[in-house]
This record gives sequence, structure tokens and C-alpha cells, in this order.
Amino acid sequence: MILLKKNNLPIGVFDSGLGGLTVVCELSRILPNESIIYFGDTGRVPYGVRSKETIIRYSSQDISFLKSLNVKTIVAACGTVSSVAAQTLDDLDVLTGVVRPTALAASRLTKNGKIGVIGTKATIKSRAYSRQLKIIDEKLSIFEKSCPLFVPLVENGVTSPEDPVVLEIVRRYLIDFKKHGIDTLILGCTHYPILKDAISKIMGKNINLIDSGRETALFVANTLEKSSLLANDSSKAKYSFFVSDEIESFKFEADKFLKWNVPYSLEKVNVQ
Amino acid sequence: MILLKKNNLPIGVFDSGLGGLTVVCELSRILPNESIIYFGDTGRVPYGVRSKETIIRYSSQDISFLKSLNVKTIVAACGTVSSVAAQTLDDLDVLTGVVRPTALAASRLTKNGKIGVIGTKATIKSRAYSRQLKIIDEKLSIFEKSCPLFVPLVENGVTSPEDPVVLEIVRRYLIDFKKHGIDTLILGCTHYPILKDAISKIMGKNINLIDSGRETALFVANTLEKSSLLANDSSKAKYSFFVSDEIESFKFEADKFLKWNVPYSLEKVNVQ
Repeated sequence: MILLKKNNLPIGVFDSGLGGLTVVCELSRILPNESIIYFGDTGRVPYGVRSKETIIRYSSQDISFLKSLNVKTIVAACGTVSSVAAQTLDDLDVLTGVVRPTALAASRLTKNGKIGVIGTKATIKSRAYSRQLKIIDEKLSIFEKSCPLFVPLVENGVTSPEDPVVLEIVRRYLIDFKKHGIDTLILGCTHYPILKDAISKIMGKNINLIDSGRETALFVANTLEKSSLLANDSSKAKYSFFVSDEIESFKFEADKFLKWNVPYSLEKVNVQ
Repeated sequence: MILLKKNNLPIGVFDSGLGGLTVVCELSRILPNESIIYFGDTGRVPYGVRSKETIIRYSSQDISFLKSLNVKTIVAACGTVSSVAAQTLDDLDVLTGVVRPTALAASRLTKNGKIGVIGTKATIKSRAYSRQLKIIDEKLSIFEKSCPLFVPLVENGVTSPEDPVVLEIVRRYLIDFKKHGIDTLILGCTHYPILKDAISKIMGKNINLIDSGRETALFVANTLEKSSLLANDSSKAKYSFFVSDEIESFKFEADKFLKWNVPYSLEKVNVQ
């Protein structure tokens, strides 16, 4: 993995779209000195419905773009990329995707060893979470389910835990997890925490909901600290965002993920 | 527009994804002698959430690809492209998009002059249907509404007119049209006819539902006939499909739109 011994270089973060901004938010909260460069591939989002070959091709282009900007390390803040293109992330020296940090957190929190995983079609088809959890502890029981309507619901603001449509769609996807008696549920897509309240309402308050964006940010912070790579410049951190579609749509959509009020620069780029 | 005087060349049809296959189906039914080359940009679908600039760039690449294959004419079988990139279609000599044929059909069918239009966010934002309908008859009253959850519902097979989730989502989008007293509703996206039964159930049996794919196919057939450009070869028509994501996902998804049982070739291409 890239871990340039240049503490004050920015951290590079990328996602298929804007969901990865949740990782940026968490990172900025935990590590306020760090500068961050974010790339969201809004011109080709969503990745979660595409084939493995296409996801690998797009991710490689995203990573090359961040490398060209002289970052000290790179984080894949996308459940689909982390699951489907895991080998590519290794090959291209990415610090981490979301799968490993999230699986580690889930394995620490479960008491009965029954863990549910939800994600995009591509994420669930890859079985990346199952494999990672079995590597951590082969006695774990894993139940996986893709929830392809969750991203459109979030992107269209249909997320209220009072909305019967939201609750019924959540119920249909998650009903089997209740039957299996899981005590921990991995939200394997950075959009899903926005449905947390509705998911809690269906699954019950006692279930552990693991936010993949948050766990990934914690893992990155921990790794940088252990490697003595935290920014040591007292000057203010800078945030630079890049997208592949027009910036006007970013401004409109980013508010869902960016619960945040700091200045940032924003630019459109072509990474193909 | 391109109208090569070579009757037995194929017709080129393109869409952001697979919805345009409904146009191919209708064309093959009306004009069984015609060969058709279809391009579906499955590696970058959906267009309906993207900016005007990006939709124009992608459409131009799609058209260039079809032109390279020696077709006698080109049809944009995508509501979003036809609405947002109308000027580009003209500039690049495309025979027609879906807007004009569909608006003409709606204007002929309405009795009270009140027409509703539904489509993707980009289609509705463009106001292309309103403009076209006003050109046809400035006394028409037009009501427009984007229905961004319809495409995900169709793509995930959640379309039954007995499903309370489907009916409730349809009701939320269309409730205002009932208040306005429209008698004709344009389904301005080639995915929407798959929700026809649910839409009828909410809007009532007396409403005219205009299927943009079907009207476009009728318009193309009519134009080719008038121009003496129909295929006159008695040998069997050929169907060649191209996609930009892997072909395995095409096979899985195409059944929703291709109510059809004829042989076709299928190939992945990169049009960028």
C-alpha cells in the first residue's frame, strides 16, 4: 500500500458517487488536521449494478487519478469497489476498502456469531464480506442479501422511518435476517446509514448496525497513527472534491452525506 | 437526418440502457423485414440522473458508434437523450428521438386538452415535452412530473399492480395529475410501460396512456415507408445488439423489455 512518509500530504478517498462523503465526514471529525482529496465518479454512478470487469476498469481509473494528485495514501470508500475489486485495490496499493474494517468491527460486536450483510447486487454477488468474516472467525454464521432499492430511496430522499413505503421495502429485504436471529447487521453500502432509523425500527433496537463508512474512517485513522503518518502541520486542513459529472448536481446531492460546514474546493474532471 | 438510399442496410437504435429494446420490439413487429442494430450503454446507465453536458457527451459517442456500422438511419430510443440532447440529435443527423412522435400522438388523442408528462429527472427538467406540445397546439395545458423511483422499481421487478408499495409510489407521483383532470398521460421513459397496469389502476381506465417507445416505432415505420426506404430484401432480418457492460447482465435484464423470441447477436463494445 502507498504510505508516503510525507505527513502533510492529503489522504485520497474515492467512491462511485457521493456515498463515500460519509467517510470524509468521519475522517475530518476524527482527524481534523488531515487534508483530504475526494473523487466521486458521478458521471458513471452507480457501480453496484455493473459487472465485475467494468467495476475493475472504472476503479483503476479512479485510483490513477488520485495517484496523479500526490496523496499520501488512498482509501476506497465504496462498498461495491471494496467487494468486487479487492484484488485491484491490493495491486494498485490502496490502503483499504470498506470490507475489512467493517468485518472486523462486526466480528468484535456480535455475541451470538450470527451476522447479516446488506449491500448492492454486485457487493453481495462477490461474497466479499462472507469471505472476510470467515477469515476472521470461521465459526461465524453469515447471511447476505442485496437491497437494490435502498440506493434509489436514499438518493430520492425517501428515507423517513415513519413512511410506510420505506418500512415495507426495508421489511421485505430484512425479514429473513429476523428469522435467522442475527444480532449484528453490516450496512455494506455507504448510502445505507441514511436508512438506519427505518432499519432499526424493523430489526429492533437491540441489533448492532455497523456503518461501513464510520468503521473505515476509524481504521484509516488508526493505521496513520501507528505509522506516524498523521498530519503535523498546525495550519488548517484543506478539502478538495472532484466529480466526473457537472458540479451543480454535486452541490444539490452532497448535503445528504456531508453533514458538515467547512469550506471546500470543487472541480469537474475526466478520469477516463 | 441520415436516410441512406440503401434499403437493406440496418436501422440503428440506441438507448442509455435496455429500455430502448421496447422500440426494437415494436419495430420488428411492424416492419419484420428490417434489420436492426441496437446499442445500449449499460456501462453508463442511467442517463436520467446526469447533467445536460454529460448526457450530450455520452449521446454523441453512442451516435458515432452507430454511424461507424453503416446504418441507413438512427433512432434515439431514450426519453432522456431525446429531451435533453435534442439539438445534438439534429446536429448529428439522427432521424428522431421519442419526444416528437409521442407528443404528436398525445395531441391527437386528448379530448380536453389536458396532458400529463412523466419521465426521468433530466427529461422533466428539460421541459422538452412541454415545448413540443406547445409547438403542436399552444392551447394545450401541460402538467409535468419526474418519477425517479419508477426506473429502479422496473429494473428490480417491483411492478405488480397488486403490490401496495408499487401502488403507493405511483399514487404519490400521479396524484396531482388527477386533481388537474388530465385525460392523456405521456409515459416519457421507455421503462414506464412496464408499470402501465399500476398506473391505470391509480389513474383510472379512461385515461390515455401514451407509450413513447411504441409511438416512436410507428413514426419510424411511417417515415421509412414515405421515403421508399423500407427493406425490400426477402431474406430474413438480422438483429445485432451491442452493450458497454458485460453481455451476461444483458441476458439477465433484457427479458423485461424484449418480449420476443428471435435470434440475435450480442457483443460488448467500448464507445468512449
